[in-house]
Amino acid sequence: MGFFDSVKSYFAGQEPSEDDNKSPMQAPAAQLDPPKDTPISAAELSMHDGSNDKPIYVAIKGTVFDVTKKADMYGSGKSYNIFAGKDGSRGLGMSSLNPEDAVADYSTLTEKESSVLDDWFKFFSKRYNIACTCACTTPNSLSFYNDMRIAGTLNIPKIVLTRPLMPEIMAKFQSRPVNLTCWETDTPAPREWLLDNVSGADALLVMLSDKVDKELLDKAGTNLKAISTMSVGVDHCDLAQLKERNVRLSNTPDLLTSATAEIGALLYLAAARRASESIAFIQRNQWPQVGWGPLLMAGQLSENKTLGFLGFGRIAQATMHRLVPFGIKKVIYTDSGRTDRSARNAELSKTYDIEIKRVDLSTLAQDSDALILLAAMTADMKHIINRDFLNNMKKTSFVVNVARGPLIDTYALNDAINENVIAGAGLDVIEGEPHIDSNHPLVKNDKVFLLPHIGSSTVETRYAMADLSVSNALKGAYNEDMQSQINL
Amino acid sequence: MGFFDSVKSYFAGQEPSEDDNKSPMQAPAAQLDPPKDTPISAAELSMHDGSNDKPIYVAIKGTVFDVTKKADMYGSGKSYNIFAGKDGSRGLGMSSLNPEDAVADYSTLTEKESSVLDDWFKFFSKRYNIACTCACTTPNSLSFYNDMRIAGTLNIPKIVLTRPLMPEIMAKFQSRPVNLTCWETDTPAPREWLLDNVSGADALLVMLSDKVDKELLDKAGTNLKAISTMSVGVDHCDLAQLKERNVRLSNTPDLLTSATAEIGALLYLAAARRASESIAFIQRNQWPQVGWGPLLMAGQLSENKTLGFLGFGRIAQATMHRLVPFGIKKVIYTDSGRTDRSARNAELSKTYDIEIKRVDLSTLAQDSDALILLAAMTADMKHIINRDFLNNMKKTSFVVNVARGPLIDTYALNDAINENVIAGAGLDVIEGEPHIDSNHPLVKNDKVFLLPHIGSSTVETRYAMADLSVSNALKGAYNEDMQSQINL
Repeated sequence: MGFFDSVKSYFAGQEPSEDDNKSPMQAPAAQLDPPKDTPISAAELSMHDGSNDKPIYVAIKGTVFDVTKKADMYGSGKSYNIFAGKDGSRGLGMSSLNPEDAVADYSTLTEKESSVLDDWFKFFSKRYNIACTCACTTPNSLSFYNDMRIAGTLNIPKIVLTRPLMPEIMAKFQSRPVNLTCWETDTPAPREWLLDNVSGADALLVMLSDKVDKELLDKAGTNLKAISTMSVGVDHCDLAQLKERNVRLSNTPDLLTSATAEIGALLYLAAARRASESIAFIQRNQWPQVGWGPLLMAGQLSENKTLGFLGFGRIAQATMHRLVPFGIKKVIYTDSGRTDRSARNAELSKTYDIEIKRVDLSTLAQDSDALILLAAMTADMKHIINRDFLNNMKKTSFVVNVARGPLIDTYALNDAINENVIAGAGLDVIEGEPHIDSNHPLVKNDKVFLLPHIGSSTVETRYAMADLSVSNALKGAYNEDMQSQINL
Repeated sequence: MGFFDSVKSYFAGQEPSEDDNKSPMQAPAAQLDPPKDTPISAAELSMHDGSNDKPIYVAIKGTVFDVTKKADMYGSGKSYNIFAGKDGSRGLGMSSLNPEDAVADYSTLTEKESSVLDDWFKFFSKRYNIACTCACTTPNSLSFYNDMRIAGTLNIPKIVLTRPLMPEIMAKFQSRPVNLTCWETDTPAPREWLLDNVSGADALLVMLSDKVDKELLDKAGTNLKAISTMSVGVDHCDLAQLKERNVRLSNTPDLLTSATAEIGALLYLAAARRASESIAFIQRNQWPQVGWGPLLMAGQLSENKTLGFLGFGRIAQATMHRLVPFGIKKVIYTDSGRTDRSARNAELSKTYDIEIKRVDLSTLAQDSDALILLAAMTADMKHIINRDFLNNMKKTSFVVNVARGPLIDTYALNDAINENVIAGAGLDVIEGEPHIDSNHPLVKNDKVFLLPHIGSSTVETRYAMADLSVSNALKGAYNEDMQSQINL
């Protein structure tokens, strides 16, 4: 008995036995109508799940079968209802009744599972009418994007996406008719590709690494209605140009506050406790020789320390929230000062039972035991952390950058650390990223704990960001209000 | 004008000018009494700081000068009062009025600074009476320890110390007469040295790396009254042997709770956010090639996660205190169960508004999103985290060890990570430490964030631990009650 047969018995034997088809000369188990190739969207398909009067559909590998006559199996509340109203190819291949497995993407199946799935397909083909086809059942194969590109000949909005996103998120593009042009490999889209493909776009879905400037906007042309960026920062977009052209811009704020504040706390602790030096110590085989020492890798305890923030918005406050329980005594910060924040500060101060004070830049340098950068990057902020600033800092202090690399003058920082002007740094961002190789002075500096811009990189956060940015791109392309639209 | 002269002008010119002594034939600037060599302790010296009616003393390189006649300079509140009542040789050599520099240890001075200090000594010798000598002004030169060893011919208690501690802390041994035998270099004392020198000791001050076993106790002999260990763990001491011989044992608990909980939080965040993989990614020059990806280095957000603790004492609770604000949903733990902790748990649960539950070991494995080891190491705990335990854990979970290496079966952990049974680990301790070289499988494993046992290594903590362990060694040697004595 083959695997498919075991599956068949596993599936409770309520389906007609494979024995029906023992001989190729036998008539098919059912008299079938000619297959129809009417396209159906995933959203439409989902209505055919047995919960209403519509025919019940089960899709396998993009082909939609009408299983209404087997409502006792596929109907609402019945054993195989998890396959109704959708393409559950993967689950069929895996012989799994787990609802999480009942998804269209069967690209992860093993050879054996693929052959089980093919057996199911043949089995269904012989028994049920083909009602229509669902063009988009294997989203991560990207074939459907190409189908949609071909659809560009139709008068439907064009969206240019510079990065294929997670399959579950890509499937959202099926919810409305769009002509999607997508860079197809999992690397940043080359600028040339973007310039070549942007013409006539109604909306762009871009990443931090894509420069949205005059050149790109000129190429896009007058159809362009909206930019959706999968980031909180918008320093890669020329806001003045967007405003002039009446192109709206949306980002993904809030969603990444927690993830980024976690990285802020991680970098703070890593710098305070000399993690990078400690790792180098092990890598260089010093541990067996040195063993232990009363002050070996002795870092700074957080208790009674003063945290300084450059920028004191949502992420800074969320970082503070996470660090206060470490015993922080006082929080100082410098911001643009455009808005009076005294009421907010008083409230935070009361909530955390800690002194919170806005100070000028030179006090921030002098009084911070740890300086955490969480300011937005604008032209006037470039190298705000320069030699003068660093020279004003305490010898035992360190800098944490969770915002943007160019806030810090890289070479001034490296010199300050090497000359013991300050104690070290924890960085998630760095000027010139991602073109940072292992010979970069800060990569080679033992007192710098450097991460490759992973502030928002948690599975939970990145899915949420991708989801919102796709929603926004769709709304933008249809000229509807987007969520978290930026006031230009 | 030489450096000493500049210093003299810097010191405001209120001291007699060096010109007084231009010719060797001139009379000294003051008529002086013959020098006295009465010894004075640092504690006694500190009383002579101008804050009372006692003569004002300034010591330079262990020689104590009576500067009472210059109370307008060295008296309370006066410019050079920072040098009164102490040996501030280093600060004099450095031409520094910074109170932190006014310490006895002048071993770090440059050649130039040493010669400035010698000039000051000559200058003082010509002007002020020598009132006494302070035998212990250069504690890190270790000469005074040898003096004290010679004092072993006297009937004073003998203390054996396996590691020279910070100079400021070593000075505490002067507070009472002791015959101190100290390993003299800043490396762990070899076992042989300890066995050779322990005979007749009244107290031992040991580190984690020193095994206090039957052999050592036999060598020490019947004088031995107490062991003071500069650690919270006592797994290096044979408690049964100590009890049998009526030798008391004290450790340094509490003091390192905050520092160790910080490392627990750091390791938790580093493992959750894939810091070690991220660092390897940069070191291997992958950042410029890969740039960015929606799920590149995507870790786990802490929100709504379940923290599991093996052992739920002070440090575990302090770690929980620091991690709850990251959004932790639930805390579970396994402990010996010898004491009913339901009241404590109810209180913690209320304080943190979080569910806290004692569970069995297999539930701990199954339900923890992150497992943090903070249990004491006893024989029955060896390899409690073994293959079976790891196989029960979630694929996305990770292990953090802030306690002792042997709690984990190293090879089982390495295999579990490599086979994606669990996601990674953050370790401050490891079986076989410090003999861990860069070829060790866990050092080479990108998903392991390993630190060289720096849990308690902050300047603040290590000073406090050293201070308490010296106090305890002194009390123990004098057969007095020690602080934080362990119930054997």
